[in-house]
Amino acid sequence: MDDRTDPSQLNRLSAAEAARRIARKELTSEKLVAACLERIAAREPEVKAWAYLNRDAALVQARALDREKPRSPLHGVPIGIKDVIDTADMPTEYNSPIYRGHQPSWDASCVALLRRAGCVILGKAVTTEFANNNPSHTRNPHNLTHTPGGSSAGSAAAVADFMVPLALGTQTGGSTIRPAAYCGAVGYKPSFNTINRAGLKFVSESLDTIGIIARSAEDAALCVHVLSDRALADFSAAARAPRIGVYRSSRWQEADDATRAQIEAAAAALAKAGARVSDAVLPESVERLYDVHNDVMGYEAARTFAWEYANHLDKISPNLRKRLDEGWALPRAKYDAARECARVARRTLAERMNDYDFLLTPSAPSEAPARLDTTGNSLFNRIWTLLGVPCVTLPCGKGPKGLPLAVQLVGCMDADSELLAWSDWAARHLAP
Amino acid sequence: MDDRTDPSQLNRLSAAEAARRIARKELTSEKLVAACLERIAAREPEVKAWAYLNRDAALVQARALDREKPRSPLHGVPIGIKDVIDTADMPTEYNSPIYRGHQPSWDASCVALLRRAGCVILGKAVTTEFANNNPSHTRNPHNLTHTPGGSSAGSAAAVADFMVPLALGTQTGGSTIRPAAYCGAVGYKPSFNTINRAGLKFVSESLDTIGIIARSAEDAALCVHVLSDRALADFSAAARAPRIGVYRSSRWQEADDATRAQIEAAAAALAKAGARVSDAVLPESVERLYDVHNDVMGYEAARTFAWEYANHLDKISPNLRKRLDEGWALPRAKYDAARECARVARRTLAERMNDYDFLLTPSAPSEAPARLDTTGNSLFNRIWTLLGVPCVTLPCGKGPKGLPLAVQLVGCMDADSELLAWSDWAARHLAP
Repeated sequence: MDDRTDPSQLNRLSAAEAARRIARKELTSEKLVAACLERIAAREPEVKAWAYLNRDAALVQARALDREKPRSPLHGVPIGIKDVIDTADMPTEYNSPIYRGHQPSWDASCVALLRRAGCVILGKAVTTEFANNNPSHTRNPHNLTHTPGGSSAGSAAAVADFMVPLALGTQTGGSTIRPAAYCGAVGYKPSFNTINRAGLKFVSESLDTIGIIARSAEDAALCVHVLSDRALADFSAAARAPRIGVYRSSRWQEADDATRAQIEAAAAALAKAGARVSDAVLPESVERLYDVHNDVMGYEAARTFAWEYANHLDKISPNLRKRLDEGWALPRAKYDAARECARVARRTLAERMNDYDFLLTPSAPSEAPARLDTTGNSLFNRIWTLLGVPCVTLPCGKGPKGLPLAVQLVGCMDADSELLAWSDWAARHLAP
Repeated sequence: MDDRTDPSQLNRLSAAEAARRIARKELTSEKLVAACLERIAAREPEVKAWAYLNRDAALVQARALDREKPRSPLHGVPIGIKDVIDTADMPTEYNSPIYRGHQPSWDASCVALLRRAGCVILGKAVTTEFANNNPSHTRNPHNLTHTPGGSSAGSAAAVADFMVPLALGTQTGGSTIRPAAYCGAVGYKPSFNTINRAGLKFVSESLDTIGIIARSAEDAALCVHVLSDRALADFSAAARAPRIGVYRSSRWQEADDATRAQIEAAAAALAKAGARVSDAVLPESVERLYDVHNDVMGYEAARTFAWEYANHLDKISPNLRKRLDEGWALPRAKYDAARECARVARRTLAERMNDYDFLLTPSAPSEAPARLDTTGNSLFNRIWTLLGVPCVTLPCGKGPKGLPLAVQLVGCMDADSELLAWSDWAARHLAP
């Protein structure tokens, strides 16, 4: 029996399909949530994706929504929230001992908007410490000895492991795209200023972007639609094949053989499907951002955590402390210069993107490393975060150790709906 | 006796001078704080500038700082914090009944940085409701029947009334420059991304800017230096007279006669002092921002307050509710178009500013209106907030009703230190 029609496998339904069935009264939110909770009960001891779950409260929410008319195309669908995003009814601990038991008095904007759309807030997904680079205890559901990536570790692992169809993550370097890629999920980092950040615990305010982990581009598109009112992409009409720029970048050799081969194979497959594929070479101003990103992140992170640093230094991990100390040491002029570099590169990229519907580029340098003491490398993500353009990662084949490989699609500023539609098109032509 | 040397008038010292005396052990922080508290005790019943004061805690902080070596050029100096900025040791209520008694568990970044610099956090200054347009109960210290402006009403009134030498405000439309102008203080809205916003209750994340209210440009410069590591301006060396563009704008006729006359007089006085003064005409892309600003602010504000709107609509003022409802009604495409307008205008302005060290333009359309049911008009502020460039307002003469008039200096992106140095120069050549 196909998983998708097996009633014991409701947790494997896409968000879109689940919501359609709920709207048609063929399914209840309560049953869907119960199926997710059952999956979590079975798998959580090994995967460790959740920082907080209140099973009873989730079922109460679901039953209440089952009595209503659908409020949105995600009515009744459960969602996980990365634990750096405030919730009025669940603790929010940022995976820091400084905030054990911390209970915000409000919902973050994005959580309130999801409730408004009739989503069930299923629980808080594990983050690394303050969404930084100190690993969490979450494991990769494909192989528990491999990292799920970070910082949105729990969000990616939970969605990939069929515990929940959707989860919110955040990205400052590569914290949504990379864990989604490592776990074999679809990850989407929207254009900067897409999903409101009120109630997000910042790392770096010029970079922090709330993102979505899903199992399909369509689900990600529905989620960003209810969160930001961006137009729903028209997935049915593939009016024309896209113009794709394959962007290997100056760091291409830092991707491993399997990753590079998969990008080439994906380019060939999409060309075969009708895309106009060419090599994209981006100007020096864009390439410089590989080095510049860290200056923006470090300078801002040091200030963001000024209170924690002054009052709870003993409870900050050595990994994070190193980043903060580097940020304190960075001169203001270097930070300003980094921001100016980014402004120039944004203009240059926008002009260059007139030639492409999207760029095709690695999501990560390799499949998920066979380690739990690292969250992996944000090399192939951070310039896009600083540029503010939308990115989608799609699972695409397996690496030499049997973990998911992925490809990244990078779109034009604010052309998120188009990028998600192209992602849906591309996913149909790529090896899953 | 000059106020500045009268020991009973320590509260009138500039922050710079007070800190110099404290460093030389000619003054203690405790005496300075006590003098400010005495002034507050005398005036607060009429001016109503403070949302929260803990006199004993402020004196304890001051005594502790008096036992230390100076940590910064503001060591021992008291400062007021607008009550939309979180404090770990004082309630933070955003002037909303939804948050009566709300106690954050952290200091906002800017508060932690001030403590790190050895400032005394004197108390929380009154804000309008969530830093929006619903008036507070604060009054203009020059005439209690006039508005102090808003939203940083308490910050401006307290500094202007010699209750404290410095205060933090915020600006989303004109919320720092306008109240400073109305109250006869120096107001400074830094370049976007100058003072870290972690721990600020947002209105509109693309616009909200933490600003400084002071009684001199030097004090504002010291404050932004400890908050952002921007270079201290060299006030002693007026190496050359500035190139000034007088910007009257398409809205010039909306400034009253006294304001327009004062701008012309200021331009003449600065020309006489050696400045090269010419008329600045800014391109259409900049002028369009008068209309566009409200789209960005409204769209974002609606999402920012999504939780409050869903759960406490009865406790939101009709003024704010109107703004939020307009924001909910605005299509996403219009918001995206507004942001694109702003991006274009930022580039265009940056090119045009090659011809000027700063623009000279009104701070507000008039002196403070003789009403308490409005915070005045942000017309002459909001385009600069959306552009992200630094602004300083300087008091400059009196209006027909005897309240302060002001002029606004607008600088180049990230050239804050230069703008503050020019402001110091300009203040020496303008009628106080």
